[in-house]
Amino acid sequence: MFLDQTYLFTPGPTPIPNRVNAAMAQPMIGHRSPDFSVLIEDVATRLKPVFGTKHPVYALTSSGTSALEAAVVNSVTEGDHAVVIVAGSFGDRLASIAENYGVNVERLNIEWGKSCSPEQLEEFLNGLSGAPIKAVFATFNETSTGVLNPIGALGEVVRRLTDALFIVDGVSCIGGVPVDMEADHIDILVTSSQKALMLPPGLAFVAFSDKGLDAIKNCPTKRFYLDLNRYVKAYNEQKSTPFTPAVSLIAGAREVCAMIEEEGWENVIRRHNLLRDMMRAGIRELGLPLLTSDADASPTVTAVKPDALSAPDIQKALKKDFSITIAGGQKDLKGKIFRIGHMGYCTPFDVIKVLTALELTLVKFGQEPRFGAAVRKAEEVWSQNV
Amino acid sequence: MFLDQTYLFTPGPTPIPNRVNAAMAQPMIGHRSPDFSVLIEDVATRLKPVFGTKHPVYALTSSGTSALEAAVVNSVTEGDHAVVIVAGSFGDRLASIAENYGVNVERLNIEWGKSCSPEQLEEFLNGLSGAPIKAVFATFNETSTGVLNPIGALGEVVRRLTDALFIVDGVSCIGGVPVDMEADHIDILVTSSQKALMLPPGLAFVAFSDKGLDAIKNCPTKRFYLDLNRYVKAYNEQKSTPFTPAVSLIAGAREVCAMIEEEGWENVIRRHNLLRDMMRAGIRELGLPLLTSDADASPTVTAVKPDALSAPDIQKALKKDFSITIAGGQKDLKGKIFRIGHMGYCTPFDVIKVLTALELTLVKFGQEPRFGAAVRKAEEVWSQNV
Repeated sequence: MFLDQTYLFTPGPTPIPNRVNAAMAQPMIGHRSPDFSVLIEDVATRLKPVFGTKHPVYALTSSGTSALEAAVVNSVTEGDHAVVIVAGSFGDRLASIAENYGVNVERLNIEWGKSCSPEQLEEFLNGLSGAPIKAVFATFNETSTGVLNPIGALGEVVRRLTDALFIVDGVSCIGGVPVDMEADHIDILVTSSQKALMLPPGLAFVAFSDKGLDAIKNCPTKRFYLDLNRYVKAYNEQKSTPFTPAVSLIAGAREVCAMIEEEGWENVIRRHNLLRDMMRAGIRELGLPLLTSDADASPTVTAVKPDALSAPDIQKALKKDFSITIAGGQKDLKGKIFRIGHMGYCTPFDVIKVLTALELTLVKFGQEPRFGAAVRKAEEVWSQNV
Repeated sequence: MFLDQTYLFTPGPTPIPNRVNAAMAQPMIGHRSPDFSVLIEDVATRLKPVFGTKHPVYALTSSGTSALEAAVVNSVTEGDHAVVIVAGSFGDRLASIAENYGVNVERLNIEWGKSCSPEQLEEFLNGLSGAPIKAVFATFNETSTGVLNPIGALGEVVRRLTDALFIVDGVSCIGGVPVDMEADHIDILVTSSQKALMLPPGLAFVAFSDKGLDAIKNCPTKRFYLDLNRYVKAYNEQKSTPFTPAVSLIAGAREVCAMIEEEGWENVIRRHNLLRDMMRAGIRELGLPLLTSDADASPTVTAVKPDALSAPDIQKALKKDFSITIAGGQKDLKGKIFRIGHMGYCTPFDVIKVLTALELTLVKFGQEPRFGAAVRKAEEVWSQNV
């Protein structure tokens, strides 16, 4: 078949729309030019609804991890006490970054594959003694398990019980889920470009509450490139960036804003929920166990734990026979699960693609042919949303 | 005229070749895939001659400043003593980054517009008393003045007089000038993608000597995203990157490698020298003073100090009348100079474009028409190199 027809279903990077590629291939412009100021202001402003913030959204030229690190080094410092909710590999990374900087991290460990309930957080916070907590870090969507945490309810607990900053890693869901930084009590919210935002990797985004903007001014941790004050100042004073930005990716981001506005932000959210529901209905029909409950399920990534079958073998077969790339498990879940990303530039037909390939593949692993069965279930879900 | 025909002559970003844009618009691939391992190994290997290193060249997803910061936080730490050669705005930035981390910085200040001679460095190093110097930082090509420092001769002095690391900011020249890390005694060499390397901004590159590779292992400065050990380890062990890389830019870098190989690395260097010589001959013919001497002149950027005329006005006129973007002066030279970048995807015809536009523009500033005069001089230089 066509070698250029490959299908990327990892939970980031995700496929790039042609019109975004075209926008990124426009003639390069200088980053200290008036044209660039217009561009960055446009993106910073039009992303506000996607981040649920009243402030501009700031762009960093770096990966999602650097945005997590920026959130850490601009909010806490050596000797501070902080809570990190760890419900998977990315919560673990957040905790590691904070620990790397000498922060006293209290890890609230959640079983991988489950969300953190507000009750668990409340109990944990009440059980802490000693110095006050400077910040609570949470992963909005745990990419490694396909769990969406109830971020607003967690934020409410943080606000009620502490004076801490509530800092959220939104890496694999912002652009696909509703969020309201004020109502959800989020002070710093970060994400990266290559997930639901339909861009190549290389940009990170940071949004603030008033309290978050205040906090970064007073954080003494040493940093330079990741000093968020520099980004706020360069934008506010000059509609610029403190360091040379990834100009082409930011030009792509403007096209992404146009696509989100054309579809309608509410419809973007609805589409992601539909993709999740179709995927889960189809997978379930095939008899493959889902890692997470419906209540915890992420709209952007679905984890499957096919106990009787080898997850890596299924992953390999999809790649070999259908040029479909999905992801495996990480750390504790390595070799035990496979993960299908369905975010960003992804339609119901893409879900049908994956389910079709899975139906054909499972036969190779000894399952009775059930051609069309998962697709039918997915269509039933879709039909209720057309 | 055509609104898409704009001419970018800033010293970065620089124009992107169409074939590089096409390479970057290829279907996105996962960064944990075998395809990506092949890609990153290809780029890391094929860039070796351009960096004059026997080791792989490592890619960071971030700007040039972050690469400078990475060079600092992986080599020196709070309380260490270091020398920074400051001959312009980017030397100043290097010093600021080191000072930000509590390093005791001895600044060797050079008049802006001049290079640092080995004799000046030798005298400076001999004049230092106190704790031994851990690292000497130098700017290879000072973008803000268009000066190329004699990096090999400086490296020789560092090696002869000290045990310090020699760390070089190669941001606006690597890809356009010859360099040999061993012969030039360079331990860490960094650059970014959007200059002579013909890529959009968003990537930085780091190369090491054996001594440089050793040094980063033992540096205690706290860092995470910019911890270069992580990049070396991920590459050496898995042909991978520690954090999500800017996949599309790296795909572009592969195409750049192909273009450099097709032209021939020696010819790439020769072309940059020719661009410099043509530009300087033309500018001189127009009676505009050059900021730097021929001996100090950079092959990638030319600074002009038109004392009798307003540099910013000339810059504005080129933009308004010819859609040509050049750069102004920075810090001490703000308002006093204009700078023309001629690196990366730049040919002799591009120099002719700028000189033609300057000839037409200077008439507006009261100069007698000398149409064709600068072009003629530039052609004379070119004719000796065809």
